[in-house]
Amino acid sequence: MAAKSNNIEEGLTFKPKFDQQGLIPVVTVDADSNEVLMVANMNAAALEATLASGKGTYFSRSRAKLWVKGEQSGHEQKVVEIMVDCDQDCLVMKVKVSGGQCHVGYRGCFYRRVKKGSSDQLELVGRRVFDPKEVYGK
Amino acid sequence: MAAKSNNIEEGLTFKPKFDQQGLIPVVTVDADSNEVLMVANMNAAALEATLASGKGTYFSRSRAKLWVKGEQSGHEQKVVEIMVDCDQDCLVMKVKVSGGQCHVGYRGCFYRRVKKGSSDQLELVGRRVFDPKEVYGK
Repeated sequence: MAAKSNNIEEGLTFKPKFDQQGLIPVVTVDADSNEVLMVANMNAAALEATLASGKGTYFSRSRAKLWVKGEQSGHEQKVVEIMVDCDQDCLVMKVKVSGGQCHVGYRGCFYRRVKKGSSDQLELVGRRVFDPKEVYGK
Repeated sequence: MAAKSNNIEEGLTFKPKFDQQGLIPVVTVDADSNEVLMVANMNAAALEATLASGKGTYFSRSRAKLWVKGEQSGHEQKVVEIMVDCDQDCLVMKVKVSGGQCHVGYRGCFYRRVKKGSSDQLELVGRRVFDPKEVYGK
């Protein structure tokens, strides 16, 4: 077992470990600033499509299908590199983006932080970069 | 439903959504460089302990207990801020660290990337910052 674990952790063979639902979590970050833009899932087909096309492609659990980020908004992700963690059950994907990545209109999904000294209050730290009504026609 | 969704997405009340196992994923990043150091889980008690102590505290699924990062290695995490995503089911935690955060000896867990043009080969991009044998006595 130790040898196998070492191989996963120390080896240079990419063996992504998908969970029982066939998914692996992906932390997508801005290639320039390292800002975390979003966290989503890929299945094997989404990872394959991402590697083949160079465009961030995920698996949508709610819609149960592959989802090319930006297919609706036009705000696509150009993949710069994909990193894998020690036990190969999580990815970090560095991307260049042409527009806001969060459907609420922010550059990334993490536009609020927990207020200092509080456990239940947030404060806004992001800046809206697009109007979801215009982009998604909601 | 729209009002509720708007409240979660646009509101300033922190209502972290734990999954069926009572966990929320946490992306821990270096507060200075934004480098993703690790991805782990918190349950409600781990989040509460983190907010109260200012030290990154997680829930270990394999050991089924709270785990203060660095309790064994000494490489603790001083929390700078905690961000939450649009639907409040994922956290980004910015931390200052005193030492390598990955048990394999690297600064972070994402020390390998998928080789350009390959789908199964990795290349090492991280640099070892400590010897796990010395730190964990393995």
